[in-house]
Amino acid sequence: MTAAVPVWSVDPRTGKPREQVAVEAGPGDVDRAVRAAHAVRSALADRVARAALLRAAADLLDEAAGPVVEVADAETALGPTRLTGELARTTGQLRAFADVVDEGSFLDVRIDRADPSLTPPRPDLRRWKIPLGVVAVYSASNFPLAFSVPGGDTASALAAGCPVVVKAHPDHPATSELCVSLLRRAAARVGLPQDVVAVVHGFDAGVELVHHPLVSAAGFTGSVRGGRALYDAAAARPVPIPFHGELGSLNPVVITEAAAAERAEQLGAGLAGSMTLGEGQFCVKPGFVLAPSGAAGDALVKSLTAAIGGTEPGVMLDHRMRDAFLAGVGERTALPDVEAPIAPGAGGEHTVAAGFLTVPASRLTSDGDHDLLLEECFGPVTVVARYASSDEVSAVLGRLPGNLTATLQIAEGEEGAAELLAEVTPLAGRVLVNGWPTGVAVAPAQHHGGPYPATTSTSTSVGATAVERWLRPVAYQGVPEGMLPPELRDGNPLGVPRRVTG
Amino acid sequence: MTAAVPVWSVDPRTGKPREQVAVEAGPGDVDRAVRAAHAVRSALADRVARAALLRAAADLLDEAAGPVVEVADAETALGPTRLTGELARTTGQLRAFADVVDEGSFLDVRIDRADPSLTPPRPDLRRWKIPLGVVAVYSASNFPLAFSVPGGDTASALAAGCPVVVKAHPDHPATSELCVSLLRRAAARVGLPQDVVAVVHGFDAGVELVHHPLVSAAGFTGSVRGGRALYDAAAARPVPIPFHGELGSLNPVVITEAAAAERAEQLGAGLAGSMTLGEGQFCVKPGFVLAPSGAAGDALVKSLTAAIGGTEPGVMLDHRMRDAFLAGVGERTALPDVEAPIAPGAGGEHTVAAGFLTVPASRLTSDGDHDLLLEECFGPVTVVARYASSDEVSAVLGRLPGNLTATLQIAEGEEGAAELLAEVTPLAGRVLVNGWPTGVAVAPAQHHGGPYPATTSTSTSVGATAVERWLRPVAYQGVPEGMLPPELRDGNPLGVPRRVTG
Repeated sequence: MTAAVPVWSVDPRTGKPREQVAVEAGPGDVDRAVRAAHAVRSALADRVARAALLRAAADLLDEAAGPVVEVADAETALGPTRLTGELARTTGQLRAFADVVDEGSFLDVRIDRADPSLTPPRPDLRRWKIPLGVVAVYSASNFPLAFSVPGGDTASALAAGCPVVVKAHPDHPATSELCVSLLRRAAARVGLPQDVVAVVHGFDAGVELVHHPLVSAAGFTGSVRGGRALYDAAAARPVPIPFHGELGSLNPVVITEAAAAERAEQLGAGLAGSMTLGEGQFCVKPGFVLAPSGAAGDALVKSLTAAIGGTEPGVMLDHRMRDAFLAGVGERTALPDVEAPIAPGAGGEHTVAAGFLTVPASRLTSDGDHDLLLEECFGPVTVVARYASSDEVSAVLGRLPGNLTATLQIAEGEEGAAELLAEVTPLAGRVLVNGWPTGVAVAPAQHHGGPYPATTSTSTSVGATAVERWLRPVAYQGVPEGMLPPELRDGNPLGVPRRVTG
Repeated sequence: MTAAVPVWSVDPRTGKPREQVAVEAGPGDVDRAVRAAHAVRSALADRVARAALLRAAADLLDEAAGPVVEVADAETALGPTRLTGELARTTGQLRAFADVVDEGSFLDVRIDRADPSLTPPRPDLRRWKIPLGVVAVYSASNFPLAFSVPGGDTASALAAGCPVVVKAHPDHPATSELCVSLLRRAAARVGLPQDVVAVVHGFDAGVELVHHPLVSAAGFTGSVRGGRALYDAAAARPVPIPFHGELGSLNPVVITEAAAAERAEQLGAGLAGSMTLGEGQFCVKPGFVLAPSGAAGDALVKSLTAAIGGTEPGVMLDHRMRDAFLAGVGERTALPDVEAPIAPGAGGEHTVAAGFLTVPASRLTSDGDHDLLLEECFGPVTVVARYASSDEVSAVLGRLPGNLTATLQIAEGEEGAAELLAEVTPLAGRVLVNGWPTGVAVAPAQHHGGPYPATTSTSTSVGATAVERWLRPVAYQGVPEGMLPPELRDGNPLGVPRRVTG
């Protein structure tokens, strides 16, 4: 018999274990969790119950705000202010998906009435979308709430009618346990089986989950390395499953000459604020900036230097990430022609200090030893590439991998801005003008995804359309009225939005 | 220098080559075709031009109906009647996608107006869908028009704004060449570059295509073996791409005891018609039938025997397929307890004769040596499993792979029919009651896809929503009005359907 592997909650401010909160999934545990979720899937067929579950979960999380924020802060060091905001985002998201469930347009109902006058005659066809089945959710390190157990993947999967098994992130096992207990209590409160959502711990559990034959789809937020391994496993299954992974993003910013001339100081301060937010641990951190050479660009760098110089060292999510950050900035700083007006690196024993690097953009216009600068470095650092011409901007943009966001900073009424927008649109899933990419609004039109490696699919993990990831269409042909689900019946008794032909 | 490999058009009625119509893509040819397509992609950004292209292509194909049907028949033996119908389906489909382009709801425009009163304040977000880039299309053997060069994948990709490079099927290279010349002429007619569509020949070209870095997505209709190899290649790329493959389907039919009692003769005749249509070479051929044991089922088998007995031997698409069919029916017939009331097999030297097999359903309720009967056998054969109880039906249904279709044959007002519908819905993308699965209507609500191996994604290759496969969403945040595409501007100058919040 194998001894259970303990799961410890760790304080990143000291590196010391806080308490043992769970054990890693042992042999059979993942299978049991998935089978239990699969067994109760039909309970989620009821849209009214689903919406009630999402709202009850939001209510219970809000009621438990004190303990949730406290435990999340203790094991992530993200701070009560940020975590209070993240909890509000999380419960707002749960309620928004409840509204999506109620409204019903996500069912994408399309009805073609029979038309015997056509050649060939058209049968009666009624199409809608049904849940895929059990969804595996892989929690993110950097959002212990909004992209973890009660986060967008879980909320959208439940909204779609799919039971969820979450692989907890090792950075916040206590938060995960607390949150899943609230979600399961919410299920009980609305009369649903608690097994519609469960949590498992451990690296091996995550691997087992993506291979399980009863897992129908997966959502992931994390690193390129981990996400790609799981994506590959999902694709290699005897029956492949959709794997919606958000892996990594550089989030390029292009600052035009005219914008820098217009507002260098403001841009430097804005960039500093965005790249240091949450210790640079956002997936949409602006990690790469094209700024002009010359006086306007110099003023911008000066402003950035001043703004970052005023920040305090901070604690990253865990010591492994701190080590990776220090190694990453070390490697980058050592490259020829890379300068560090403010060197990012170690703060105290457990903290890191924000900084930024500069490099001539000409170093990046072709394959070479500077390609590392075009890879994400998680933590409070950005790379400012100084360009001498718009051709250099185009050459560098043409070499960038896919991104969650791309940002333009342009001047008022600047000529050529539309062309620049067209040039950066292929690079990202969200394109901003004169804003900063951090802060992903939970809103119906949001798109949080982008070309690989930003995401492994064309889907979003934020916004109303995130629910689409967990559904597949089914068309009913010639099915008698009484056998159809109410959403597809004549007269539309539930009043869902539908497109009807004929 | 490597000699060019000739591509021959072959007459399946004789097995003899007709003429050399092309050469296989040599070194660099695929790369040139993809780069040429990629270079002209921006020309397709104009929706008006796209719609015009699709309609011009339909017109030119209709005008060339005589030669198109003649050459397609000469190399597929599908016959002028079927091919005339398939051409009408193909041009109807091109025009239907032109309507989709005009109407604009596929752009899925969602606008959230800025709301500074929210916490946090919501920025202005405007989301729509943009084309992915060059699409690789793999032609099907069994539809030289509707699922080949001018077929649904090509039509929907062009509708989405994506240039297309088609891998021609070796069964109809002459048809492919003729069709691509018409599509390219249509492009020229509406002022678009001809390179928006191209054709390549050869097995290696197909492999090269899915690996090409400038190919952004692929559509495939064909075998499980070929499709899975290409799917795996698409997933293993450094930058994986969506691979929408339709691979294989058994298309189960469940005939209830009551239905058999009500109309055994009609059911036998209907089944015979559906399974022998087009020499059983439809992806939606009913290849597996659960029929009751006892007198009513016996009457059905008798009717099926009589109906198939009246059919003439026919020519399959090529001799390799004929060989595979003969081998497949041979292996199946040799299994214990399998009977062949009419033995499927060789007709004349170049033809095959339709037939069917029966087996007790109890043989199929657990893993065993009869699992081959649960795999698709391309050609005019179906397997009738005789069940003794509804438990046996459930046990067999629970072991079926994913399907394009599932069909119920029930009696008027039959009890338990809704439960049976719920039971078969997870098995397929289209579920029919009291119809036959052959004949896939081109209609807005159509869904032609299903759980793996029916398709490798949750998408459809027929119907209005097929266009969604070649698009990805982009959200614009805070972009000044003048820089936005007209579809996203205030006032909606192009009048596309939009969902607006705030």
